[in-house]
Amino acid sequence: MTKRPLILVTNDDSIIAPGIRTLVSIANEFGDVYVVAPDGPQSGKGHAITLDQSLRCTEVASDGPQKEFKVSGTPADCVKLAINVVLPRRPDLILSGINHGSNASVNVIYSGTMSAAVEGALERIHSIGFSLDEFPWTASMEAAKPFIRTIISNVLANGLPSGVCLNVNVPANDQLPYKGIRVCRQAIGNWVEEFDSRIDPYGRPYYWLTGKYELYDQGADTDIAALKDGYISVVPVSVDLTAHESIATLNQWNFETE
Amino acid sequence: MTKRPLILVTNDDSIIAPGIRTLVSIANEFGDVYVVAPDGPQSGKGHAITLDQSLRCTEVASDGPQKEFKVSGTPADCVKLAINVVLPRRPDLILSGINHGSNASVNVIYSGTMSAAVEGALERIHSIGFSLDEFPWTASMEAAKPFIRTIISNVLANGLPSGVCLNVNVPANDQLPYKGIRVCRQAIGNWVEEFDSRIDPYGRPYYWLTGKYELYDQGADTDIAALKDGYISVVPVSVDLTAHESIATLNQWNFETE
Repeated sequence: MTKRPLILVTNDDSIIAPGIRTLVSIANEFGDVYVVAPDGPQSGKGHAITLDQSLRCTEVASDGPQKEFKVSGTPADCVKLAINVVLPRRPDLILSGINHGSNASVNVIYSGTMSAAVEGALERIHSIGFSLDEFPWTASMEAAKPFIRTIISNVLANGLPSGVCLNVNVPANDQLPYKGIRVCRQAIGNWVEEFDSRIDPYGRPYYWLTGKYELYDQGADTDIAALKDGYISVVPVSVDLTAHESIATLNQWNFETE
Repeated sequence: MTKRPLILVTNDDSIIAPGIRTLVSIANEFGDVYVVAPDGPQSGKGHAITLDQSLRCTEVASDGPQKEFKVSGTPADCVKLAINVVLPRRPDLILSGINHGSNASVNVIYSGTMSAAVEGALERIHSIGFSLDEFPWTASMEAAKPFIRTIISNVLANGLPSGVCLNVNVPANDQLPYKGIRVCRQAIGNWVEEFDSRIDPYGRPYYWLTGKYELYDQGADTDIAALKDGYISVVPVSVDLTAHESIATLNQWNFETE
């Protein structure tokens, strides 16, 4: 007799976002679910943790079999609190998302959604971040569901390498029907910032961060290419940031001091 | 005739921290310096950027030849604002730190100091994050200076691979005399969280994030081992988070949907 897995669900768009509601409904098919998610938007918070203030964690009403808790912190805080304070035991799986907006390419570094999955990988718990390449909270996630189910099934059946989590991105609905799933690498690209500079009523300048994504990578094996081709992209993401291939180069430098 | 390099200096401990003052004094030896740094502490902010509010950027008095600006955002915000709004041209070098506290091993993921260096690498600008393995702002950084100088000299002379920045950690002063510089990989380890749970005067629980670092890696080639042996650790850090070696594994999975 197999025990049902214990699944933690979190996100960065806050506990009320449609994306996490969809993910909770899928997670309930696979195991016993705890939702521990931010009480407000945490987009773009990267791997931030809260050190300069304390955290609140409050149980809230649930619309299903899952237990639900809102947290006054970041997605990484939510994972830490869930594991150490809220859950009855260490979870078997951490699911983050479904994010409203793509976390392909360089977005993985800024993403609160992916920070929760990375935090899971640091804890050596199998973790997946899901994102839909559409910002509006009204965007349908119906077509994504069967692909999300098969990815979760695979992770539960096969596990993930230690220190690796998955960054899953789903194309926008204008790409339907989706062509399938493609395992990819992170595309090389960057946000070209264009600050919107304004003057406040007292004559002082202030700045809104805006920007435009630029792709520097024509590879057919990237997440951006997969999304463009109508495939769900799956990138294995490492918590080891070492550029191993650069170690030999640096070892040739002359580090003598005067 | 060689033009003096344009150097951006930032950090996460705020513009008034002794660590950034030391780094500015070293940077002035190498080029024309702009300081664009947070107006308050930003430790543990990971690669957070500010999307939900606007940013202030204010020129402040300088105690040397450098120009100085304080910013109401994260280290990543500082780099973006510096490049796009403050500096007269793209910098030749970005220096972040000197952080008060180690950013070795898994700390690289949480570190605001390193997020500034990573943001530089995303911009294809040579970038280095420096940290001292001591928290007190009173800790001496004198012995670190010659090593910081030779690392900066090497980066200016040799450049860095595209998309790679350096995570430099200096042992605590109780390790003096330092034995030299060692190029390393990021040690595998994690913070074992021990939340400090308290009850507020109104009977409601709240939580302080605390924790203890655990090393899961006995390799002699890690940054943690280097620091323990009295060496300055230099880890090349990648902005490509793909776990490339896991792609073949995932390609063997069965992703059929029902």
